[in-house]
Amino acid sequence: MLHEVLPLESGEELVNPTLHYAVYGRLNAARDNAVLVCHALSGSAQVAEWWPQLFLPGGLLDLERDCVIGINIFGSCYGSTGPQSIDPATGEVYGPTFPLINIRDMVRVEAKLIESLGIARLKLAIGASIGGMQVLEWAILFPERVARAISIGVAPLGAMGLGLNHLQRQAIMLDPAWKGGYYGDGPQPEGGLALARALGIISYKSVPLFEQRFNRKPNRHGEENPWISTSAGQNGRFDVAGYLDHQGEKFNPRFDANSYIAITRTMDTFDPVRGHESPFVAYSRITAHLTLVGISTDWLFPPEDIRSMAAIIRAAGARCDYREMASVHGHDAFLAEPEQLVRLLTPVFE
Amino acid sequence: MLHEVLPLESGEELVNPTLHYAVYGRLNAARDNAVLVCHALSGSAQVAEWWPQLFLPGGLLDLERDCVIGINIFGSCYGSTGPQSIDPATGEVYGPTFPLINIRDMVRVEAKLIESLGIARLKLAIGASIGGMQVLEWAILFPERVARAISIGVAPLGAMGLGLNHLQRQAIMLDPAWKGGYYGDGPQPEGGLALARALGIISYKSVPLFEQRFNRKPNRHGEENPWISTSAGQNGRFDVAGYLDHQGEKFNPRFDANSYIAITRTMDTFDPVRGHESPFVAYSRITAHLTLVGISTDWLFPPEDIRSMAAIIRAAGARCDYREMASVHGHDAFLAEPEQLVRLLTPVFE
Repeated sequence: MLHEVLPLESGEELVNPTLHYAVYGRLNAARDNAVLVCHALSGSAQVAEWWPQLFLPGGLLDLERDCVIGINIFGSCYGSTGPQSIDPATGEVYGPTFPLINIRDMVRVEAKLIESLGIARLKLAIGASIGGMQVLEWAILFPERVARAISIGVAPLGAMGLGLNHLQRQAIMLDPAWKGGYYGDGPQPEGGLALARALGIISYKSVPLFEQRFNRKPNRHGEENPWISTSAGQNGRFDVAGYLDHQGEKFNPRFDANSYIAITRTMDTFDPVRGHESPFVAYSRITAHLTLVGISTDWLFPPEDIRSMAAIIRAAGARCDYREMASVHGHDAFLAEPEQLVRLLTPVFE
Repeated sequence: MLHEVLPLESGEELVNPTLHYAVYGRLNAARDNAVLVCHALSGSAQVAEWWPQLFLPGGLLDLERDCVIGINIFGSCYGSTGPQSIDPATGEVYGPTFPLINIRDMVRVEAKLIESLGIARLKLAIGASIGGMQVLEWAILFPERVARAISIGVAPLGAMGLGLNHLQRQAIMLDPAWKGGYYGDGPQPEGGLALARALGIISYKSVPLFEQRFNRKPNRHGEENPWISTSAGQNGRFDVAGYLDHQGEKFNPRFDANSYIAITRTMDTFDPVRGHESPFVAYSRITAHLTLVGISTDWLFPPEDIRSMAAIIRAAGARCDYREMASVHGHDAFLAEPEQLVRLLTPVFE
C-alpha cells in the first residue's frame, strides 16, 4: 500500500492505493536483471498463470537468470485498488465511482514500486494489449529506467476499438442487475458481463479463424438444430454461438463488472503523444531499445497502425523496430501462438 | 392475404399470412417489364423510400419503362405477417413464437404473389444483403421465372456473421423490458434493440471508414470530455460512441424487437446449396443472367466469399459474373455509394 495521495491525469486522486505485485526468481546483486511483465484487460500480477509460455525452456525468460515482476493494474479485481476497494473518502466501496485511470497514472505508480525495490533500470519491460500500452509509456516517461521494451499488439485505439469498448460497457449497463454499478455484494450483472466478454472475444479473434473453427456447423455440444424453432421462438445455436455463450459464462466467476468498465475506459485513454508538444518531442525521449510487434489479422489494433507508429518513433530518432506475427488468430495471437512470438523476439535479445 | 396454409422449411406453418407489397410504374401489356426489388433487414416494400437512387435519371430503373415491385418479408413490421400479427391458431399476437422463416419460404411466397399478378417471368430480381439472399434463391428455385438476377453483398453468413447476429439477439433479450418477447403493447426493449442496432451498424461499416469519420475525436455534439470522469463513474464519449448511441436511439421508433430477432434468424438460414444433392446440382438450375456484387471492405459478407461462390456457380455451368465495389464503406456501400453501384451494373444491362 502506498501511503500517499496519488494525483491522476483526470484531475482526481487515489488515496493510499494498494498495488498487488508478484515476483518470480531473484534480483541479482546489481539489481539489473529485473523484467517487468505488464498484463492486459483481464490479467493479473501472476504472470506465470496467464503467460506461462514466456518461462518455458528456450522461452524469453529464464528464472535462473531473470527476476520477473508482475503488477496488477488499478481498476482490476486481482488485488490492486479497484472498484471493489473501499474509497477512503467515503468508507464505502468505490463501485462505479472509481476514478478514471490513465495508462500514465499506472506507469507512474509502477515506476515508484520498481524504485522502491531498489531497481534503477529494468532489463526489460514487456507486455501485450493493455500491457503493451504500459510498456510504451514506460519508455517515454522513464527513458533512463528501462533498457529494452517490447510492446505487442497495440497502438492508440482507433474509432472501431473505441466503439467496441463503448458497446461492451453498454451491454453491462443494460443488465437490470447492474443497478447503476451498485450491485455490491449482490449478484453482479452476469448477462451483461457475459455479453461484453463475448463481444470483446470477437474483437480479439479474426474472421478467418472463426471460419476455420466454426464455419456454419451447429453447436458441437448437445443436439441443437438451427434449422427449426424451439420453444419460445428460439432456434438451436450454431457452433460459434455456443462458443461465445461459453466464453461469457466462464468469464463471470473470475471478473468484476465495474472492473471491466474501469479498465476499458483506461484502455481508451492510451495516447502516448497527447500533452507533449509534438509526436517527435514525445518519442525522441525514448532511449530504450524498443520493439513493436503487430499481428497480421488483428482488427482491434491493426498492424498497419503499429507499423506507422514505429515509423514515427524512428523518425523521432529513437531505436525502434517493427516485427509482425503472421497469424490467423487476430489480436489474441500473442497468447495463441507463443512459439512464433518467441521465435520473432529471440533475435531482439541477441 | 393468402387464404391458405403455408408450409415452412422448419416444419411449422403460417396460416392465412398477409403479404404487403408496393408497385411503382405500370406492368406493360406483355407483363415482361416487372422488376422485383428485395429488401434487407430493416427495409420495407416501399423501395423508393429506402433505395431511391435506383430510380434516378441514369439509374438502373426507369418508371417510364419498368414496373417495380417491392414485397415486405415475413417477420418484418412493415405490413407483412410478423411477430406483431395475430396467430390464427391462438388469437394472440405471435410475439416470440413467430415461426422460423427460411429465405426459401419467403421466395416461394413471393413467387406466388408474382404469379398472381400475371407475371410469368421477372425482367430482373435485384437485392442487397437479405435482399440478395432472396434474389439468389429466386434464381435457383424458379429459374424459368427470372431473366436477370443481381445479388449484392451476400453469401451464406460465415461464423463471424452468425456470431454477430447471435450477440445482437442476446442484447435484445438482456433488456428487462424484453419480458421473454411478451412486451406486447407496452414499451419495447429499447436499450437492447438500440445496442443490437449499434452492433449491427458496426458490422455494416468498416475500420477505415470509422477511422476517417471519427478517429479519436470527442463527441461532436455537446461538450463531452473523454479524459475526465463525470458523475457516477462515466466519462465523456468519443465521437464514435455518440454516433453509435444515436444510431440505436433513432432505430427504436421505427422497428420492432421481435422482428429484429425473427429476421436475423432468417438471415442465418441462408444456404443456397443445403438440401440439394450437391452445390453443382443446385447452381446448375440457374438459367438467369446472374451478377454477384462484392464490396471490398465488407467484413460481414467478405468479398472473397462472394467471389468464390460466383466461381462455383460458373463451374456448375450457369452464367454468373462477379463485380466488386471498391469502397471504404463496408457492407453498407450499396446504399452509401449508389453512383458507383450504378456504374458497376450498367454494363450488365447493355
